[in-house]
Amino acid sequence: MNKLLSDINSPIDLRKLSKEDLPKIAQELREFIIDIVATKEGHLGASLGVVELTIALHYVFNTPKDLLVWDVGHQAYGHKILTERKDVFHTNRRRNGISGFPKRDESEYDTFGVGHSSTAISAALGMAIASKLQKNFTKQHIAVVGDASIASGMAFEAMNHAGVTDTNILVILNDNAIGIDPSVGALKMYLTNVKKGTQKQDNIFEALNFEYSGPIDGHDIFAVVAELERLKTVKSPKFLHVITTKGKGLKQAEDNQVTYHAPGKFDKVTGELTPKDTTHLPPKFQDVFGYTIVELAKENEKIVGITPAMPTGSSLKYMMEEIPERAFDVGIAEQHAVTLAAGMATQGLIPFCNVYSTFLQRAYDQVIHDVALQNLPVIFCLDRAGLVGEDGATHHGVFDLAYLRCIPNLIIFAPLDEVALRNIMYTAQLGLKHPIAIRYPRGRGVLLDWKQPFQKIEIGKGNCIQEGTEIAVLSIGAIGTIMIDVLQETTFSTKVAQYDMQFVKPLDEPLLHEIFEKFDTIVTLEDGVIKGGFGSAISEFASQHNYSNRIHFCGIPDRFIEHGTVEELHSACGISKNAMKELLISILR
Amino acid sequence: MNKLLSDINSPIDLRKLSKEDLPKIAQELREFIIDIVATKEGHLGASLGVVELTIALHYVFNTPKDLLVWDVGHQAYGHKILTERKDVFHTNRRRNGISGFPKRDESEYDTFGVGHSSTAISAALGMAIASKLQKNFTKQHIAVVGDASIASGMAFEAMNHAGVTDTNILVILNDNAIGIDPSVGALKMYLTNVKKGTQKQDNIFEALNFEYSGPIDGHDIFAVVAELERLKTVKSPKFLHVITTKGKGLKQAEDNQVTYHAPGKFDKVTGELTPKDTTHLPPKFQDVFGYTIVELAKENEKIVGITPAMPTGSSLKYMMEEIPERAFDVGIAEQHAVTLAAGMATQGLIPFCNVYSTFLQRAYDQVIHDVALQNLPVIFCLDRAGLVGEDGATHHGVFDLAYLRCIPNLIIFAPLDEVALRNIMYTAQLGLKHPIAIRYPRGRGVLLDWKQPFQKIEIGKGNCIQEGTEIAVLSIGAIGTIMIDVLQETTFSTKVAQYDMQFVKPLDEPLLHEIFEKFDTIVTLEDGVIKGGFGSAISEFASQHNYSNRIHFCGIPDRFIEHGTVEELHSACGISKNAMKELLISILR
Repeated sequence: MNKLLSDINSPIDLRKLSKEDLPKIAQELREFIIDIVATKEGHLGASLGVVELTIALHYVFNTPKDLLVWDVGHQAYGHKILTERKDVFHTNRRRNGISGFPKRDESEYDTFGVGHSSTAISAALGMAIASKLQKNFTKQHIAVVGDASIASGMAFEAMNHAGVTDTNILVILNDNAIGIDPSVGALKMYLTNVKKGTQKQDNIFEALNFEYSGPIDGHDIFAVVAELERLKTVKSPKFLHVITTKGKGLKQAEDNQVTYHAPGKFDKVTGELTPKDTTHLPPKFQDVFGYTIVELAKENEKIVGITPAMPTGSSLKYMMEEIPERAFDVGIAEQHAVTLAAGMATQGLIPFCNVYSTFLQRAYDQVIHDVALQNLPVIFCLDRAGLVGEDGATHHGVFDLAYLRCIPNLIIFAPLDEVALRNIMYTAQLGLKHPIAIRYPRGRGVLLDWKQPFQKIEIGKGNCIQEGTEIAVLSIGAIGTIMIDVLQETTFSTKVAQYDMQFVKPLDEPLLHEIFEKFDTIVTLEDGVIKGGFGSAISEFASQHNYSNRIHFCGIPDRFIEHGTVEELHSACGISKNAMKELLISILR
Repeated sequence: MNKLLSDINSPIDLRKLSKEDLPKIAQELREFIIDIVATKEGHLGASLGVVELTIALHYVFNTPKDLLVWDVGHQAYGHKILTERKDVFHTNRRRNGISGFPKRDESEYDTFGVGHSSTAISAALGMAIASKLQKNFTKQHIAVVGDASIASGMAFEAMNHAGVTDTNILVILNDNAIGIDPSVGALKMYLTNVKKGTQKQDNIFEALNFEYSGPIDGHDIFAVVAELERLKTVKSPKFLHVITTKGKGLKQAEDNQVTYHAPGKFDKVTGELTPKDTTHLPPKFQDVFGYTIVELAKENEKIVGITPAMPTGSSLKYMMEEIPERAFDVGIAEQHAVTLAAGMATQGLIPFCNVYSTFLQRAYDQVIHDVALQNLPVIFCLDRAGLVGEDGATHHGVFDLAYLRCIPNLIIFAPLDEVALRNIMYTAQLGLKHPIAIRYPRGRGVLLDWKQPFQKIEIGKGNCIQEGTEIAVLSIGAIGTIMIDVLQETTFSTKVAQYDMQFVKPLDEPLLHEIFEKFDTIVTLEDGVIKGGFGSAISEFASQHNYSNRIHFCGIPDRFIEHGTVEELHSACGISKNAMKELLISILR
């Protein structure tokens, strides 16, 4: 059967089709996405939900001259396929392949790189203002934003500004009532009422001075095309409310939207997930967090858990299921999450605020100003720290040690393994005098037998995990297990000592004095940026105490790291097992 | 005449009065504020505007058991005076005196430390949730938020969450249509319509599931008391819209609200400002920015200016007056401001995004994710970098070098003086391949003759500004002028070289090699935090290149620095002229 999609390489081809062909294209595009994601993995549900919208946008608007910005970008697979990347779509999220997110370097159709939520309206407004200043009055500027993302503060700021401009901006709300997990909050409730028709039409978006239209059925491609055609002629800020179903077209994905956000491999016909035997694998760090907070919270009723929109990804969902009254999903609202935790801490609660390392960048001021300055004992659990792999540059949690280390009062800890994570969580809830940030990586740990009885960790203490004679490797966090492996596999291991420093702050200065007095050569190992990070702290220590030991910094170099497997990226950054082995050999030579 | 206020030391005393006495108290409180601020300086207009609201809150609610959170805190002078700090109020903003902002250490009535905007609702919600978990159903939780602050994204996030809780939280909107500068944005327009009665009552706050009441006249103390009494009995999230006049009670302050936000000394009867002769003083850095951007923008039509709510403070107002179509006040919306700039840069505009150093913490993720990752040549001008003086710990811009230095692609520059600021602005708009952050201090520079012809600065180059034989002082930014003074005043100056490094990133490595080869002892001087900052970069350089020179780090130590004059704080941090002199002497001894 001849497929229409096979002749479509760009929106120019798409626009040659008659409107009547669009449903067929939609079906083919959906199948194309399912076919490839079923075997190559990736984000599924979001892109299936906007197939019709994607086609309609490129059909109606003159992309790339008209500027289309996707918020977050999980939903942009259809966009990528229609914009000259069909033939490379199977390389999605692979090293040297295309990115899982829109990316300016990759295509002129990707007008703005995304990954974190709620940036699209600001970016599109910037473009629209530029067009106006350049006296280009025909260019269109479109931001497509999900309902979970539009509830984040930054999107409100952009709407608040856009509403008083006379720019040609179209904000499309892709309302499927879910982000990665189901949307939450008052705005979601409000939107539900709008959909049900129980909300009056003098609505919140009109209050912000947008011309509101909708809600329309986002899977009725003729309706979407017609409405976009009409909106093209409206010159003031306008808002289109589109109702879609995440996972549309694959029954299992529609029925299990959280699982099929990024389902891994699955059967493209039945949707059945390819089973994975994980019984003999160590646990994911997120699950160690998730199970441990439940365990601790059952004993300590002051404990509360907070996640900004990541109950599944952080595994706080276990606590939300078992102790719902003390576990809070606040939506994509990192700023609010942190200050909420601070408010709770003033009243004697013990908040575990779980935020992905990369997303804590969104709440940096709140960590400094609301938590650390007031010295409130909030416990930050920073998941996805270090290199996260296929999500790439927008999601690596590599800046945290550097941006947190300069904050007074804050304790910074990185567990070597699952037991250390459990023990620091236990220690923190016993009552600290300071806030603490606990950062741990994406993925699995190293221990099968991880559920050990709790032991208190002494704040500011590092551990010698291997004695040695010539080189001291100072590692921080789970990346240290790479060095443990190296030393187990090599013959020169007696020459190399390894210290798991545990705390980036406070540093274990007595231990560091011992180390600097004993070893000429120091190697620091971290999966964060070298500039300003852990190695930098060691370097400051050395300078301050007048040590002249040679220091090798191993960590993330001063450039943005793209996507690939974690192992590939560790290699690229010189912190893989092989790279470390070679470094040690070259030093010992 | 016997004053009622003289017998009031705490809200307990206030609550003993009959309601009929409240207007008299309001008048006395207003006079008290005016009397002291007229001579001691401080923030005037905001507190005058909420005199009645402040009295009513403490009269109706059982503070400090009921928890009252002031947003930002400029308006909390009346609160401080009524809560046991009347007798020390004259020490406001002075070193070892009370803080200009609510502060937990200072009083149990200050339930949450503030300074940056839009945190109050999150904090109060955290408290309200805590009360609920602690089964305290009588405690009240009140956040007082201005209309400029509530338009910031973080406040929306908190409202969005609060609306779906069944907590006892009261959000009071203190709507005076102005922050420091007049409020902007669609929400402001909307609120204006509400006040005029031209907006239907199914309003934006009800859409977020709050019980809305108002608008009421915030200067009618009986009306405010009555409405607060009623709201006390409402158990769900509720919202009170209060209309006030900033500067109320002092005609000049009402008529010139921007000037009288923090007017300096003035005549307490006439309101007349105490004249200052500034003709023979060097310019403020902010004005060098403000005048220079106008000068450059007249020649280069790609230049745009952006400020998040600080047109006066940043002096972008000059451009807003002269070239209004290219100068944007986006409101208290740092996140949006940065990504808006990124969007503009994608279309070839040259955005100068002016944000106070401390407030850029609010947009950290956007700097990384939207600007630096995409390598968009946005020009950040970070005003109020370093120690800002009387505004204290919440406002010092001391973290910027540390949190920016770890970001790839970003150039970081700190001008020694006004000419360097002008020249780097000139250089940046000629076209850089990277984003740049230019950070300069609050207050005045050192040059009367600052308006020199523009000269291009070579990126990554430092300057030797004094040759020497034994010690090399590496300074960054305007704090370097302290060292220039020291070397002019001392007899040992031939032994001390000074280098104005100019760029924290990229470092001038050739120059550093020269320095490290020539001098045994290196002193780094910055007005930012030592941990992770400029000195840390020098230390990394030394370790990386195996230099064993002795390095002394001069900068902000690892603790939060409170308020005081800039000179006092420089002394406290060991970076005053005297401290530097003593350090050099001790090294040379």
